[in-house]
Amino acid sequence: MAETKKLALIVHSGTLDKLLSAFILGSTAVTLDFEVHLYFTFWGLTMLKKGEMEKAGLPATYKHMEEQLREKMKEMNYPTPYEMLKRMKASGRMKLYACTPTMEMFGITRDDLIPEVDQLAGAATFLDIAADADITLLI
Amino acid sequence: MAETKKLALIVHSGTLDKLLSAFILGSTAVTLDFEVHLYFTFWGLTMLKKGEMEKAGLPATYKHMEEQLREKMKEMNYPTPYEMLKRMKASGRMKLYACTPTMEMFGITRDDLIPEVDQLAGAATFLDIAADADITLLI
Amino acid sequence: MAETKKLALIVHSGTLDKLLSAFILGSTAVTLDFEVHLYFTFWGLTMLKKGEMEKAGLPATYKHMEEQLREKMKEMNYPTPYEMLKRMKASGRMKLYACTPTMEMFGITRDDLIPEVDQLAGAATFLDIAADADITLLI
Repeated sequence: MAETKKLALIVHSGTLDKLLSAFILGSTAVTLDFEVHLYFTFWGLTMLKKGEMEKAGLPATYKHMEEQLREKMKEMNYPTPYEMLKRMKASGRMKLYACTPTMEMFGITRDDLIPEVDQLAGAATFLDIAADADITLLI
Repeated sequence: MAETKKLALIVHSGTLDKLLSAFILGSTAVTLDFEVHLYFTFWGLTMLKKGEMEKAGLPATYKHMEEQLREKMKEMNYPTPYEMLKRMKASGRMKLYACTPTMEMFGITRDDLIPEVDQLAGAATFLDIAADADITLLI
Repeated sequence: MAETKKLALIVHSGTLDKLLSAFILGSTAVTLDFEVHLYFTFWGLTMLKKGEMEKAGLPATYKHMEEQLREKMKEMNYPTPYEMLKRMKASGRMKLYACTPTMEMFGITRDDLIPEVDQLAGAATFLDIAADADITLLI
């Protein structure tokens, strides 16, 4: 029996392009039977507040392309970031962590966050998991 | 005989500073006899369109320093990102992947891309390679 | 006796949010007895110039939140990035590298840099360390 592969990904960014890249990687890893650990911190963490992920836009450098990207995604019936997150969660192979120092810094409480969050955790929890992972990335 | 080391690098970004960092890492890895796998996605992927990499600029935060950086690079006879990419390719130790979901999202076809691209691939291809790599990074 | 874990982190970015994320990770790793290797390049490298880290701000996308974040950090008595860096250094388990190609590109000399820098090094030095690390990240 092959050992389960593990992906540990820190989501620092909160823009639409980065969430899409992170979640396409995570979703694909889930379909390949990886264990996927997503640790949301800083701007990424703010996107875990209820209703925020739907509003994610492009960074200043690419702001002018935001409407075009949204329309293209709709036309392609591309899943939104939150839909991708929920599908990963439903697979039972993705675990979602919210960074506690960021929550304190931004005055965010557990009740503000989407229900898909598995655990409020500091960086130590992530480092323990990542040290044992096959792929570690930060976006 | 030492085992070949492997670097797996996702290039999400398409700005000049990030391309330079990515390609300096990749070029150095090649000279150290690493196998180098570069997977271009999102803004990074758009830079693989013919003629685009030459136009890569700085992100909004540092836009005001763009001209100064370009002039300094010229003065130093620093290779451009595309020149670095071609040298990596010529080494035979770098493999270049273009992200197929991004190509669909941006309406980019194989014919639009520079000839150095080795393979059109989804995230699964990258994850397979990365799971076996010594160094995994995303820029 | 457990083997020492190793974190190899490239700091490409020079904005306050990225420095905070990098240094919270690094500081936590140090408290978990990891060996921490921080390789500063590009905008990150420019933050190693004496007096620069104190001036680090938010990227264009989040510029409007800069004052609020600074005030919150003061109110929380949150350590500044440079204070975190000095504590990591004092632990004896963090090693700090300054990217030599970036120094040349930006006309920065050793005397311009903070004394905490351990070594001026090219990418080869980082790749050697990272190939042997448990966690490799780029921010």
